[in-house]
Amino acid sequence: MPQHNDFDLIVIGGGSGGLAGAFRAAEHGARVALLEPAALGGTCVNVGCVPKKAMWLAAEVAGKLRQASVLGFDAPDCALDWSTFIGHRQRYIEGIHAAYRRRLDAAGIALMPTRGRLLDARRVVTDEGLVLSASHVLLATGGQPVRPDIPGAELGGVSDDFFTWRDAPASVAVVGGGYIAVELAGVLQALGSHVTLRVRGQRVLDGFDDEIAAQLVEDYRHLGVDCRLSTATTAIERVDGGLRLRDGAGEWSEPVDRVLFATGRRPNLVGLGLDAAGIALDARGFVPVDAHFRTAVDGVYAVGDITPAPALTPVAIAAARRLMDRVFGGRERAPLALDDVPTVVFSHPPIGRVGLSEAQARARFGDDVQVLRAGFRPMLHALAGSPQRSLFKIVCTGEARRVVGLHLLGEAADEMLQGFAVAMRRGLTLDDLHDTIAIHPTSAEEVVLMR
Amino acid sequence: MPQHNDFDLIVIGGGSGGLAGAFRAAEHGARVALLEPAALGGTCVNVGCVPKKAMWLAAEVAGKLRQASVLGFDAPDCALDWSTFIGHRQRYIEGIHAAYRRRLDAAGIALMPTRGRLLDARRVVTDEGLVLSASHVLLATGGQPVRPDIPGAELGGVSDDFFTWRDAPASVAVVGGGYIAVELAGVLQALGSHVTLRVRGQRVLDGFDDEIAAQLVEDYRHLGVDCRLSTATTAIERVDGGLRLRDGAGEWSEPVDRVLFATGRRPNLVGLGLDAAGIALDARGFVPVDAHFRTAVDGVYAVGDITPAPALTPVAIAAARRLMDRVFGGRERAPLALDDVPTVVFSHPPIGRVGLSEAQARARFGDDVQVLRAGFRPMLHALAGSPQRSLFKIVCTGEARRVVGLHLLGEAADEMLQGFAVAMRRGLTLDDLHDTIAIHPTSAEEVVLMR
Repeated sequence: MPQHNDFDLIVIGGGSGGLAGAFRAAEHGARVALLEPAALGGTCVNVGCVPKKAMWLAAEVAGKLRQASVLGFDAPDCALDWSTFIGHRQRYIEGIHAAYRRRLDAAGIALMPTRGRLLDARRVVTDEGLVLSASHVLLATGGQPVRPDIPGAELGGVSDDFFTWRDAPASVAVVGGGYIAVELAGVLQALGSHVTLRVRGQRVLDGFDDEIAAQLVEDYRHLGVDCRLSTATTAIERVDGGLRLRDGAGEWSEPVDRVLFATGRRPNLVGLGLDAAGIALDARGFVPVDAHFRTAVDGVYAVGDITPAPALTPVAIAAARRLMDRVFGGRERAPLALDDVPTVVFSHPPIGRVGLSEAQARARFGDDVQVLRAGFRPMLHALAGSPQRSLFKIVCTGEARRVVGLHLLGEAADEMLQGFAVAMRRGLTLDDLHDTIAIHPTSAEEVVLMR
Repeated sequence: MPQHNDFDLIVIGGGSGGLAGAFRAAEHGARVALLEPAALGGTCVNVGCVPKKAMWLAAEVAGKLRQASVLGFDAPDCALDWSTFIGHRQRYIEGIHAAYRRRLDAAGIALMPTRGRLLDARRVVTDEGLVLSASHVLLATGGQPVRPDIPGAELGGVSDDFFTWRDAPASVAVVGGGYIAVELAGVLQALGSHVTLRVRGQRVLDGFDDEIAAQLVEDYRHLGVDCRLSTATTAIERVDGGLRLRDGAGEWSEPVDRVLFATGRRPNLVGLGLDAAGIALDARGFVPVDAHFRTAVDGVYAVGDITPAPALTPVAIAAARRLMDRVFGGRERAPLALDDVPTVVFSHPPIGRVGLSEAQARARFGDDVQVLRAGFRPMLHALAGSPQRSLFKIVCTGEARRVVGLHLLGEAADEMLQGFAVAMRRGLTLDDLHDTIAIHPTSAEEVVLMR
């Protein structure tokens, strides 16, 4: 086999984490090879955050158009031409690809459009049989959605398929209760589909605060989403009029045009040669890493959705950058703090969350938990007479009333959360909130005015 | 004169500050009289924050409608029927009035629809000649817009007049460069007027960061606002076709349909009897107060726009509440911190600001100032091909890179700022921002990703 021995770092996977690692290592002077057979940017840029956010933005505009006629605008029912919008969306994504390619060129990073397989902890072989070697290898191959193991599963799509759609089906069943299910259901309903959300458990968004999750279901029902909780999906079959779904009791649903599964994701590890490098998976099938994202094998690292860390783009990016600062920059940085990672669900309205839910706080601190709530209608919804309500919650503990959880459901929660997440890293207390002057009239001021 | 001696507190003025003081005093068991001859809620509820925000929301919806057709929605040019919208707006405001009246009743506060004049530090006479006495008096009569002293000033309106308008004039000149001018200009342009913004100085928004102010002017020009800087307005006259305005060089403008002045406000102190109570005004015409909002006369207090404190509703409310906690609650609270008051300008896009501008920081810290900038297009604007750009700035000082100023121009800046303002009260550093995981994809994440 031909052999190249010129690299300090081989990165397998050109998603957000792999790219961030490659760029940061190159900034520190490392010679880097980046192996990615598909589109740069991985799930986030191609079939995740970015196109999802674009569709969410379209859905939000659709919601505004519906409000507009109530408010007094001469705005008839305005349908979206998906191909026009998707043209914009894909051009935006191509712009990101092009920017990445320019940056890779400028940084002198060797981009190879191929998969990579570990031969050992220092050598990687490409699909073409080229063997690369380097003193360090970063694994960042990401994850992919999985279909459930039920009869007829092949009749439904997953989130990757959703991003190939060119119209809104008249009716669609979204199967799942996690954030992807909730996001896809909201987008499709807003863009004109009649959506049934089938959730196996008794609630949506496990791990999020109970009341927030319940309020979202209520808001979704106002929007017309048929939310079916405690409804397993055990089979799908094609019938006259579409696809029908069977529940746990054997009952079949009315037929729908399409089915979308959002029932889980798994790391992309097939063919990666982990065995050859001596890396074993954990019980859940992830690559185990320490607090600095080092695998058990010296010189081999892993970031992103193949690790047990939260499967969030900014976590993968921050992890990769810190890691490369240590490895090539000689910078001893503290481990990435993963306890208070802020997250947003792009539902309608969106949810922002940082820290513990009320239930998690009670499990940890017992009776020493104080909860504050603000339920209100944002001004635009009040003006339009829309029933959508915002619900904010603060979870505190201790005599100093330290804020250990903040939960925001409501318009603009997506943009509101980041600053509070920063504040929480400084040991935020309820007094800090109360001592800050409110910004009036906003939704965000409710956070500092809650009693 | 008849005399009533039953009150612990007389509040003169039923705006946000007066109401907040009355409610908080009553919570502490005080017997309270509230004197307000006009609508409850003062400027904020009736001719300020609330109707302004409502108009801004309508203008934002109008902007979304314009983007919608580019994005692929079948949305023709959608005009706003002002009377429908203003119906919603005024119903919303009436709802606030009704809620205030219910709360006043429930709290047992005596609401008197009259002005009040101090006879001395303990006695107040109403328009009807009723003399009230109390051990404490809170002055909270607010402010009002002023017309400039130029020929033809009576031909123009002020912000109070704007809120009586029932349509968008085809053309309008807004005179002024402060936040009210900028806000009214933005709303009118978005709702269909052709707006000329005439600013005497070389820039808008004195006291705000220079680059932010310059970027807003650029964004306004993209929206079609004719921004004329360094343009004094020295006279107005009626001609065929409307009203024309003379500048400092004696040149007359093309005629416009209407003129709006946003050239300043003054405190409402006429007939308040300050002399009788022994209260002298400061050089700028405000009622001087100490850090606890006590006037020089024992037992007489003042909050809101009649004091030199920032003329912001939440400042008046927080001041009144703290004051009443001290006076009637026996609670020794620290003075209200007025150094880092967050403020938002509801321009298009909005501006959020807390702390020092770059120029202010350089004046205070000399060379020891570090500035970070992020200029970008929010995703929706990128998708729609709109030229609107966001500009965020962080101003730091010292080895620890303490954040002393944060400036946000861009969509959602209004809702984004509050959390960062909280964080700044905790001694925020640049490392704190960098150590917080970003929320992707949002605009807010740019604050923690800036290098």
